[in-house]
Amino acid sequence: MNEITLRLSKASAAPLFEQLYAYIKKEIKSGSFSKNEKLPSKRQLAAALGCSQNTVQAAYNQLVAEGYLVSRAKSGYYVAPLDGILSLGAARKTPAAQDTETVRYLYDFSHQGVDFESFPFAAWRKLTKEVINEYDRDLLKTGDPKGYPPLRAGIARYLHHSRGVSCTPEQIIISSGTEFLLQLLIQLFGGGDVYAIENPGYEKLSMIFKSNRASYRSVPLDAHGLRPGALSESGANIVCVTPSHQFPTGRIMPVSRRIQLLNWAGEKPDRYIVEDDYDSEFRYSGRPIPSLQGLDQGGKVIYLGALSKSMSPALRVSYMVLPEPLLAAYEEKLNFYICPVPTIEQKVLQRFIDEGHFERHLNRMRNLYRLKREALVAAIREMLPGAELDGAPAGLHLTLRMPGGADEAALVQKAKARQVRIYGLSRYYSERPEAGYPNDLLLGFATLSIDEIPKAVDLLRKAWENP
Amino acid sequence: MNEITLRLSKASAAPLFEQLYAYIKKEIKSGSFSKNEKLPSKRQLAAALGCSQNTVQAAYNQLVAEGYLVSRAKSGYYVAPLDGILSLGAARKTPAAQDTETVRYLYDFSHQGVDFESFPFAAWRKLTKEVINEYDRDLLKTGDPKGYPPLRAGIARYLHHSRGVSCTPEQIIISSGTEFLLQLLIQLFGGGDVYAIENPGYEKLSMIFKSNRASYRSVPLDAHGLRPGALSESGANIVCVTPSHQFPTGRIMPVSRRIQLLNWAGEKPDRYIVEDDYDSEFRYSGRPIPSLQGLDQGGKVIYLGALSKSMSPALRVSYMVLPEPLLAAYEEKLNFYICPVPTIEQKVLQRFIDEGHFERHLNRMRNLYRLKREALVAAIREMLPGAELDGAPAGLHLTLRMPGGADEAALVQKAKARQVRIYGLSRYYSERPEAGYPNDLLLGFATLSIDEIPKAVDLLRKAWENP
Repeated sequence: MNEITLRLSKASAAPLFEQLYAYIKKEIKSGSFSKNEKLPSKRQLAAALGCSQNTVQAAYNQLVAEGYLVSRAKSGYYVAPLDGILSLGAARKTPAAQDTETVRYLYDFSHQGVDFESFPFAAWRKLTKEVINEYDRDLLKTGDPKGYPPLRAGIARYLHHSRGVSCTPEQIIISSGTEFLLQLLIQLFGGGDVYAIENPGYEKLSMIFKSNRASYRSVPLDAHGLRPGALSESGANIVCVTPSHQFPTGRIMPVSRRIQLLNWAGEKPDRYIVEDDYDSEFRYSGRPIPSLQGLDQGGKVIYLGALSKSMSPALRVSYMVLPEPLLAAYEEKLNFYICPVPTIEQKVLQRFIDEGHFERHLNRMRNLYRLKREALVAAIREMLPGAELDGAPAGLHLTLRMPGGADEAALVQKAKARQVRIYGLSRYYSERPEAGYPNDLLLGFATLSIDEIPKAVDLLRKAWENP
Repeated sequence: MNEITLRLSKASAAPLFEQLYAYIKKEIKSGSFSKNEKLPSKRQLAAALGCSQNTVQAAYNQLVAEGYLVSRAKSGYYVAPLDGILSLGAARKTPAAQDTETVRYLYDFSHQGVDFESFPFAAWRKLTKEVINEYDRDLLKTGDPKGYPPLRAGIARYLHHSRGVSCTPEQIIISSGTEFLLQLLIQLFGGGDVYAIENPGYEKLSMIFKSNRASYRSVPLDAHGLRPGALSESGANIVCVTPSHQFPTGRIMPVSRRIQLLNWAGEKPDRYIVEDDYDSEFRYSGRPIPSLQGLDQGGKVIYLGALSKSMSPALRVSYMVLPEPLLAAYEEKLNFYICPVPTIEQKVLQRFIDEGHFERHLNRMRNLYRLKREALVAAIREMLPGAELDGAPAGLHLTLRMPGGADEAALVQKAKARQVRIYGLSRYYSERPEAGYPNDLLLGFATLSIDEIPKAVDLLRKAWENP
């Protein structure tokens, strides 16, 4: 019998039984005990260690529960046969090396993020306090898998009123980010589908389809958006578009092109249109462009929306509207996925919408972003003569082309040297266009203040002026 | 020219230009205008309608932006050629029929949900208020895609301390629910893998694999958990297990079986073990059973955990620990998925853990659930003599077998007639066992109060006593 040479410490934070348990376990794992070896009786060990038999009993019980010891009736405790335990070797420690971007930018024309000063903290805080003060049992239960029904009703009303989307609350599914909604859609459609994506377009789409082993084709754009001829030739049966404000070109798809798409979808039962209405809340001249979904009479459009632009990307709330024929399939196949948005947040958001805060916030932000866009356009016109602007007066970004075929990468690099971050449009191409990349730049203006915008453009001027 | 017979109303909530815009759009969509038809000049129409030219201009601008009209320089506005718009037909309205379960249960032995009276509302509320009172810019930004780093650090410390998990914060990925983590894993591994799942086991696994077009095999259990021989024969290379407290049988996998699994995984480079540690915080005699991950020296175990049992399923927080070799692949392939948990909630949770609330809450709940389990076991022993109980004194459920081969469906139905909800174990089998279903029942005890438990068991006695 292997001798147990442990000294139990009453000063230790660990109870005596745990010290004994840990010691024996370590000895077994290190091979100091042979398999089937008998352990000392409780009485013997308690006497040797100067502890109570209960302490030994507790340690032995734990080791039996974990399978290190086996207990044989009227005989005692034995080391379990643990073949292979010796082969486990020593623990590794490999701290991950970090290779992070260390450039500090003064100004970042990111198209992500929102105005930092304008989040409706007061209302959000008040509603959050209200919700968590209610000791509400719903806050502890797994709720409706499609999302909190009153929130879905609020979103349905908002979409009807503001986006011309025609739907019932039952058709709405709430999730966290477009990427999660697309995963659900891919699973809803099953395999065998071919998706068409805009080229250039939202850069995550190709990653999501690739990662989910779904086929996709890049379809080029013309001035009106996705080219219908190229769509037909692509062999795709599900097309993803951003008709209200194409990302990244900023163009609006006219109704004629929308109808072409709807008619294309109507030609075959397995054809669908995924409409990503990511920043449609913001249009600065006239009314917002109504959704494509509102034109659809054939149940062919899946509408995606999010609060990333209108509220904050950190809220992680997005939603989709399924046409009736797909809704039944969703409920049959995918209702086991539980809405990832916490119930507290869903309740806060529902009140935020129902009490009119959302609409007021949108109106306020629309005015603010209009001023920012005007400041950016004015600064470019003044300081970067010859620059061509593209994109409708809408959304939170525009695109810029410098005269003389200036190289995109060089422009980005020179701006970086002045600590201004801008983004080349080439990164949004899932496939290189035949004519090569157009050397366009994307400038988001939501996160910069109105004062910062001309300063940032002035730095771009300095960065790009001839040496 | 089609006559515009609109009567603009200043009393309407909609501005005049919107009324005019909506009217013309409706007329174009309904086919009252022919394509290329010229619209009245601004001056003409303004005079006819008794409004300003600016109103007409605004309506025309909007219709041009949406593509219903085209503007020709020095000529005027024309209806765009919108072939196919007439084919869109009339709107459908199909209210979804609801077919909901209408039975009202007095008592529900659900294994989901937690004790409703014990959520640490006071601490959670205090921390939530703290976080949202801080006007913190982080609350508005897309954060680290793997989750808020200080929260990941807190979880790593907790896992090390309480579950024997050995990991750095970098290895932790925070998400919403096991189903989202598994989707990430399936994408991380790519296609071509075969997953083994416990039979019986967590019922969502087979749905998730099926929905994600991943192959899986059901592997039967013996008293120690998943049978290694059957695992080898299955041809699977990734095995999903619940070693701390098998779901649903409640058994603990002894260390010998754990080592067999680790050795199995070590035999081939593409073999991995997914350890779902879903309710391991609760063990009522001795220490918690340490994780299988803590035994792993070969980077073969992916550890999954969640706050659904320890805190609340409505929080939607889960996490996984990737072994180092998979972490690099994750960051390369899947870092575009943004953590779905809102930043506010991640910060609240981080403080909840770091300030010791989590550990105190777990200790409190462990005591409470121990009492509930004891009450349930005592009531069954007293009122249902002959019933066999299975499952270690751990977790939030146990299993029950009535004497005499009583039929599971009949037991569930008779309990339902007494308004008591219980769950047959057969629903957790992804494949029918060779010997048929064992007529076991699953009884969760977390959501019932200690007073309710004997009353509910008494109703079961009445329901099941011989007629």
